[in-house]
Amino acid sequence: MNGTSKKRVAVVGARGLVGQELCSLLLRHPTLELSHCWSTQELTGDNSNPVPGAPAIQAWNGGAGVDAVLLATPHGASAQLAAEALDQGAVVIDLSGDLRIKDLALWEATYEQTHPCPGLVDMAVYGLTELARDEIKNAQLIANPGCYPTSVLLAVKPLVQADLLQPDATLISDSKSGVSGAGASPKASTQYANVHENFYAYGVGNHRHAPEIQAHLGGPKIMFVPHLLPCFRGILSTIYVQPREGLGMKEIHAALSEQYAQETFVRVLPAGEQPSLHAVQNTNNCLLGVAAVSSGVVITSAIDNLQKGAAGQALQNMNLALGLQESEGLL
Amino acid sequence: MNGTSKKRVAVVGARGLVGQELCSLLLRHPTLELSHCWSTQELTGDNSNPVPGAPAIQAWNGGAGVDAVLLATPHGASAQLAAEALDQGAVVIDLSGDLRIKDLALWEATYEQTHPCPGLVDMAVYGLTELARDEIKNAQLIANPGCYPTSVLLAVKPLVQADLLQPDATLISDSKSGVSGAGASPKASTQYANVHENFYAYGVGNHRHAPEIQAHLGGPKIMFVPHLLPCFRGILSTIYVQPREGLGMKEIHAALSEQYAQETFVRVLPAGEQPSLHAVQNTNNCLLGVAAVSSGVVITSAIDNLQKGAAGQALQNMNLALGLQESEGLL
Amino acid sequence: MNGTSKKRVAVVGARGLVGQELCSLLLRHPTLELSHCWSTQELTGDNSNPVPGAPAIQAWNGGAGVDAVLLATPHGASAQLAAEALDQGAVVIDLSGDLRIKDLALWEATYEQTHPCPGLVDMAVYGLTELARDEIKNAQLIANPGCYPTSVLLAVKPLVQADLLQPDATLISDSKSGVSGAGASPKASTQYANVHENFYAYGVGNHRHAPEIQAHLGGPKIMFVPHLLPCFRGILSTIYVQPREGLGMKEIHAALSEQYAQETFVRVLPAGEQPSLHAVQNTNNCLLGVAAVSSGVVITSAIDNLQKGAAGQALQNMNLALGLQESEGLL
Amino acid sequence: MNGTSKKRVAVVGARGLVGQELCSLLLRHPTLELSHCWSTQELTGDNSNPVPGAPAIQAWNGGAGVDAVLLATPHGASAQLAAEALDQGAVVIDLSGDLRIKDLALWEATYEQTHPCPGLVDMAVYGLTELARDEIKNAQLIANPGCYPTSVLLAVKPLVQADLLQPDATLISDSKSGVSGAGASPKASTQYANVHENFYAYGVGNHRHAPEIQAHLGGPKIMFVPHLLPCFRGILSTIYVQPREGLGMKEIHAALSEQYAQETFVRVLPAGEQPSLHAVQNTNNCLLGVAAVSSGVVITSAIDNLQKGAAGQALQNMNLALGLQESEGLL
Repeated sequence: MNGTSKKRVAVVGARGLVGQELCSLLLRHPTLELSHCWSTQELTGDNSNPVPGAPAIQAWNGGAGVDAVLLATPHGASAQLAAEALDQGAVVIDLSGDLRIKDLALWEATYEQTHPCPGLVDMAVYGLTELARDEIKNAQLIANPGCYPTSVLLAVKPLVQADLLQPDATLISDSKSGVSGAGASPKASTQYANVHENFYAYGVGNHRHAPEIQAHLGGPKIMFVPHLLPCFRGILSTIYVQPREGLGMKEIHAALSEQYAQETFVRVLPAGEQPSLHAVQNTNNCLLGVAAVSSGVVITSAIDNLQKGAAGQALQNMNLALGLQESEGLL
Repeated sequence: MNGTSKKRVAVVGARGLVGQELCSLLLRHPTLELSHCWSTQELTGDNSNPVPGAPAIQAWNGGAGVDAVLLATPHGASAQLAAEALDQGAVVIDLSGDLRIKDLALWEATYEQTHPCPGLVDMAVYGLTELARDEIKNAQLIANPGCYPTSVLLAVKPLVQADLLQPDATLISDSKSGVSGAGASPKASTQYANVHENFYAYGVGNHRHAPEIQAHLGGPKIMFVPHLLPCFRGILSTIYVQPREGLGMKEIHAALSEQYAQETFVRVLPAGEQPSLHAVQNTNNCLLGVAAVSSGVVITSAIDNLQKGAAGQALQNMNLALGLQESEGLL
Repeated sequence: MNGTSKKRVAVVGARGLVGQELCSLLLRHPTLELSHCWSTQELTGDNSNPVPGAPAIQAWNGGAGVDAVLLATPHGASAQLAAEALDQGAVVIDLSGDLRIKDLALWEATYEQTHPCPGLVDMAVYGLTELARDEIKNAQLIANPGCYPTSVLLAVKPLVQADLLQPDATLISDSKSGVSGAGASPKASTQYANVHENFYAYGVGNHRHAPEIQAHLGGPKIMFVPHLLPCFRGILSTIYVQPREGLGMKEIHAALSEQYAQETFVRVLPAGEQPSLHAVQNTNNCLLGVAAVSSGVVITSAIDNLQKGAAGQALQNMNLALGLQESEGLL
Repeated sequence: MNGTSKKRVAVVGARGLVGQELCSLLLRHPTLELSHCWSTQELTGDNSNPVPGAPAIQAWNGGAGVDAVLLATPHGASAQLAAEALDQGAVVIDLSGDLRIKDLALWEATYEQTHPCPGLVDMAVYGLTELARDEIKNAQLIANPGCYPTSVLLAVKPLVQADLLQPDATLISDSKSGVSGAGASPKASTQYANVHENFYAYGVGNHRHAPEIQAHLGGPKIMFVPHLLPCFRGILSTIYVQPREGLGMKEIHAALSEQYAQETFVRVLPAGEQPSLHAVQNTNNCLLGVAAVSSGVVITSAIDNLQKGAAGQALQNMNLALGLQESEGLL
């Protein structure tokens, strides 16, 4: 490996939790160089990077001089940055919600604003890696999936695509996330006082990830209720499905096992076993458990929200888009 | 108040978490005296009570000399103790699972043993206080509900009784409990190492509280999946229901609000608000939230598993059975 | 007890953690009425009290109409409020640092500002209850001690007063506090992300409680280093002392045991036993452990920082100043 | 790198927390192969390794067939295993306390047993890497230091060796450890119920690491008091030292900075800054902070107890003893 041949990658928004995770992963990547960290916010005297060893923060230059740009920037701001970086020829991976929903009206209702860059939406590939690998390999612009949607869609989208579920039965995803999903900036809800030894549902009926899940699931309706766990990292979604008549836990388990048999990062546990957050934290893995409960089937899906739910999957997608081995820097 | 007129109460199994909670509550009770703590295990040199101020542990004497006996003893052992204490004329509240299920065959399948005392089962009143108050007032023997069943049944049993739900739609209770639900004795699953920053589903498809919930819910089928939270106290059940055609969140919210309008310990939050564990820990309260999610209705039900889910409800029941004010010692 | 004869008490600063603790304690107080909660900040539309059942927040009226005022307000602002309430004839307990240090120059160096009300300083009694009970009974103005100073001074001031320590040996207090010591307003240091599974020393060499401890200890020098624990409530100070020649652990233990033999809230454990935070949380107790380590003696002192370290001790002092039983509302 | 040329390493005691950490580190090591995991306990049906990818547990074969053996076994049992493996020609690193103290009488008083293998004691090099590197390079048998001693000795031994401290002033190390220091087997003290939101001193005056620290510190007396933190990983020792007359914080900071200027794993922070557990968890680093507090100097020393305090330092030592780069597999 010749160091000078490494492809150059930039992170925008390196001060956030996802941005920091991207920097940490890229510093360990064998064939990519984290060459720049850009910010669109006014730079202060202290431009040091919170991740030791990562480049200092510099002003956004439009995305010039790198092979790929990772946007860990807020929705509403990301799409415009994507447009600029595409103009510079970079591969762009947007980790915000800007480009995840094709239906503009739905996007605008969900995010309660006019879309900042509608022209990009159709071009963006929804980067749920294991289910869109071929498109991702050829993509110039990738909309990285949300954390909750990743945990839910990996578990049930193959079942919908294979038509194994009752089409008129509503799926339910009861999802729980660690507090890192709420970002780095201090707020009351993420204070230790309010998180430790606590637990509650939030955003019931109006979370932005609900339309994203529904849009990419297709087919049956899904109810999604997120909760805040008293821990830092990880999402576990408990998903209730109704198989078609004549099918049961065995067939669901077999279908998912076959779907993911060759995957590095998605694994189906033996029937009846359940994944834990401990088993996925600080990894890019998604672990799936399948079990029968009275008349239905329950799938539990565990990921690290900052890795497979954000930075890890982004890197997985970038590897593919840049022609590298998918798992580089992620094992 | 004349101290000598206080009714005398005993706790059996005072070393467990529920037993300790009972002792703590009884020490603060204005009109009951915690006169004895009995154990059926061999007594060692140290018979001190883990709760400061509570009576030292003594050998079980068959239940003589007290007005009421609270059994915080394991299933399989409790029913026999109940029989002995009834013979002594005491009011008996059994906090184990021995007397919660009327169907003997179901009980034996659930607990994987022959029932130790089948003759008592019919006599026992299932002590879900707010929904069985009149029976409890006249009861000599009360089967105190399980922690998960309390959180679930308070939320949905009134809806079933009022026939507000689609009879052939399966209810789902995705329930989460703090680790105190697993008891005081050291085991791998309750080690700090395995609990902190972790979360997972367990007992999927085979938890003993599932048949108890189904038996007392009547009517529609219910799927129940418990999870272990990285915290000590509290249960939150997220329950998905399908109202009858023409009914929705408003009607469900109104029905529960009316049901519990006069209750001291069960409160329905304004529509769309969700309870947290913080709001119920160290109280005997059950807080209910009702919200609409796409086509369905979600009810979140929060209790303290050691209080309303065990010792608190037991004391509430004992107050009633002894002719006292229901809330004495619980506010 | 005739309700109309209850003395009336007000809390200023009820939105903070200490203010909330005061409100909670006062709501349970048998012979005091929490009649008002005042704020000096601009009132917004929502003037509800974060503690259910406590009075809504009203604008500060100068302290009229109550028997006592508890100031849970910031240093720099409290002293002026104290002056106004004294003018109205109220007993005033200031929980801020404004009146804890008699030496004005030291106060101004410590708090880096001009003292807002120097005329009050001499009048204020330093309310370390067990060591200043007689003065407190007759006080109109009480400076409630800081949380760390309470934990340290209760452990060692009696030893200094009895001249049991080597006068030229420096005492060391290695103190650790839960995060509630840092207040309720969101900041980076109190985010769950930065507290959980973390621990560090802070304010080394420049914490405001160091001069307060030294001023009230008298005699020997003391080094004080505070640390932030990954928990919510409680302070544990580990204090290293050098007894005079010929004295050792036994004599230190005996002296403290005798000092506190009749106290309700301060207890000395059997020699060699150590207190834990669990043993004092949500109580007004201070537990002291004494042990020998090689050539020295170690005293560990545990309190709940929001109770004995703030609101509890304030109430204890107010009980005394109003002529009530010291422990009312605190057991 | 030719895989067949990798040196072969075995871990004994792979089921413990330290053993698991060793396995995890060795699986990522570029030039060593974790070829065997041995146990001296009776093997049951399930001989799988708790670390995915690590070799299954096999019966102890006396240490044949490997280049080095890492003993993560209990004191009292380790020394005999070391003797057997030495006979087979392996380099041996013992992570137990068996070989850390040269004075046999002191060892036997500390561990309350007859030494199992006194003939090995003199041969063992005490593996505090940065302070004994040359001996370690040539060692066949290394006694890996305890976790607390590592944190304390790295901070103060260079100061004693350079004669910068008052020889008759007692040093104090107030040390705090996460619960992983107490091992993996379930016990009451490591239950979530007893750890979360708790904190206390333990082993005051009789912890086994006190004689180890004193023996290797030489010179001045040191008082050591350990505490249990409500977290999983990490040790922070707050150490109080008295510099010789005319010396102060600056000179102490300069001496430590110079001592460790070229080190990969030990770093001295800028004067006045304090390390946190977050900064060292899951690394082999020791971070040192130096600050002035009134008349004295405080050094805070932070390590990960399972890495620099156990498995990481063992690997660092093994690298040296096998002629590899010291930091291999540890960055």
